[in-house]
Amino acid sequence: MGTPLDVVGVGNALVDVISLEQDAFIGSHGLVKGAMTLIDTERAEALYGAMGPGIEMSGGSAANTMAGLASLGGHGGFIGRVRDDQLGTVFGHDIRAVGVEFPSVAATSGQPTGRSLIIVTPDGERTMNTYLGAASELQPDDVDEALVARAQVTYLEGYLFDREAAGEAFKKAARAAHDAGRLVALTLSDSFCVERFLGPFRELVTETVDVLFGNDDELRLLYETDDLDAALTEAERHCHVVAVTRGAEGALVSSHKRRMSIAAVPVDRVVDTTGAGDLFAAGFLYGLTRDLDPETCGKLGAVAAAEVISHVGARPETVLAGLAAPLLL
Amino acid sequence: MGTPLDVVGVGNALVDVISLEQDAFIGSHGLVKGAMTLIDTERAEALYGAMGPGIEMSGGSAANTMAGLASLGGHGGFIGRVRDDQLGTVFGHDIRAVGVEFPSVAATSGQPTGRSLIIVTPDGERTMNTYLGAASELQPDDVDEALVARAQVTYLEGYLFDREAAGEAFKKAARAAHDAGRLVALTLSDSFCVERFLGPFRELVTETVDVLFGNDDELRLLYETDDLDAALTEAERHCHVVAVTRGAEGALVSSHKRRMSIAAVPVDRVVDTTGAGDLFAAGFLYGLTRDLDPETCGKLGAVAAAEVISHVGARPETVLAGLAAPLLL
Repeated sequence: MGTPLDVVGVGNALVDVISLEQDAFIGSHGLVKGAMTLIDTERAEALYGAMGPGIEMSGGSAANTMAGLASLGGHGGFIGRVRDDQLGTVFGHDIRAVGVEFPSVAATSGQPTGRSLIIVTPDGERTMNTYLGAASELQPDDVDEALVARAQVTYLEGYLFDREAAGEAFKKAARAAHDAGRLVALTLSDSFCVERFLGPFRELVTETVDVLFGNDDELRLLYETDDLDAALTEAERHCHVVAVTRGAEGALVSSHKRRMSIAAVPVDRVVDTTGAGDLFAAGFLYGLTRDLDPETCGKLGAVAAAEVISHVGARPETVLAGLAAPLLL
Repeated sequence: MGTPLDVVGVGNALVDVISLEQDAFIGSHGLVKGAMTLIDTERAEALYGAMGPGIEMSGGSAANTMAGLASLGGHGGFIGRVRDDQLGTVFGHDIRAVGVEFPSVAATSGQPTGRSLIIVTPDGERTMNTYLGAASELQPDDVDEALVARAQVTYLEGYLFDREAAGEAFKKAARAAHDAGRLVALTLSDSFCVERFLGPFRELVTETVDVLFGNDDELRLLYETDDLDAALTEAERHCHVVAVTRGAEGALVSSHKRRMSIAAVPVDRVVDTTGAGDLFAAGFLYGLTRDLDPETCGKLGAVAAAEVISHVGARPETVLAGLAAPLLL
């Protein structure tokens, strides 16, 4: 059986390569500011060649969430695919170093470990260009059903939909969670991702997802409406909990159709928004798996998100348990 | 011929793996606080396994100096050895991305690219544990004499002495510089390094070095005296310029036996002292290669060192030319 876990994340195992650039870089390299764009090897090499010096840190949306959960004192696991190369070693080390269970064995063949080339502009916005590599080869066989069954919540990142086999792995994990009487959470991840897989996403939300995360754009796109209220009403028909992040405006949380606004936690300067949504989910899930009320869950999310946007990199630099303590008295 | 260069650095091509740890980590893993300790593969794996999540950034003492020189607007080159692996790609990308010429071709066999496992404690002190890898296989053949001849100054890091062939490469570079009528600069690098190679270091300083960098401990060790003044007097007999860094007390600069004190530039918080000496040398060499007076050279060093200790990582985060501009009016 193993010890109980709070959350198991299933996602793309990536190392971030972060470069601070002026705004002109976005235009001159045809990037889509604020989005996550998938790139192939050739494009990755060209873009990397154009980027300034990099800072390499482990990333990946659901993996960042698990790192955040661990920093709050929670117990997490992670399922994702890396190669047996230097970046794969970095990813595995970093997630295990924060206490997250990562039983996946590095693949001995196939594509190299994936990476996201992240351009951070002076406004703190991040523009991600992701070469999925080994992460794109995640298979249903990579999903350890026993690990999933040990966790109260299985947390899936929408980015995985970009590859068919990964989507199957995703569904296998969701089934295993429900079969074990556990909750399934999903983050919509990215507007373009929602648009690319609108049908499958909506089907998944309708049939499978208990806890839904997304930002306001993503939720409105999911229901093809400009009206956040209408989109939320739709999502509430299928999901017990819906948490919608709204950047500086904070978040909107709906729990069993009861809605509440959560204020953003102010930061001195927004340095790098990478990981803001991931860390909001970390705080929220930490609260949820401790049966805290939805408002406290949202506030925990806001505290975790505020920490991560105040420095470069998508994982906490500070022990989040310390920052969260006043909310848990 | 190629275009003229200000400085060519010869040193260990390393990627830093930085982890922020509490002081207890130093004791419990038997580390020598503040020093650079060489470690083998087995020790590197064990220590990495014990470290928290890492931040990977290109490093290497002389390479950091070249990155600093470039950030000031200078023209630098670098000679060092990497493997054709992911960390080697990172090192090559990062140094070229800041505009430093790095003509070395990655080795296709031999040890993997070197790395320094750097523990940064809350006082900002860095404790380095270096697996030299490919850097230790630097050969005299790796020294491009034409590149050396193009630079006003050839800057050698004392760390290279730790491997015999690298020491030979080092001497070849110094000879090529002098044959071309250029200056040779040396940084003593580390107290333990000076102790290990006291004879060869002293011989080099006596016979070859024109511009000597070191901190006060290193200089006193070089002349086996507790008296910095006496050590400086010895060094002045052989070197035109001696620049001694003294941490928060600033620096002592001697130019043709004329001495002056340089105040440290205050910083809000010392976050990570990694690269402080490297960046002092960068500022100083930038001034020296522009025939600025020694006091201004020292002040440029102090400005560059202050920037690098105010954040994590051994290379500048800010364009140093902007910070240095008031000194260059």
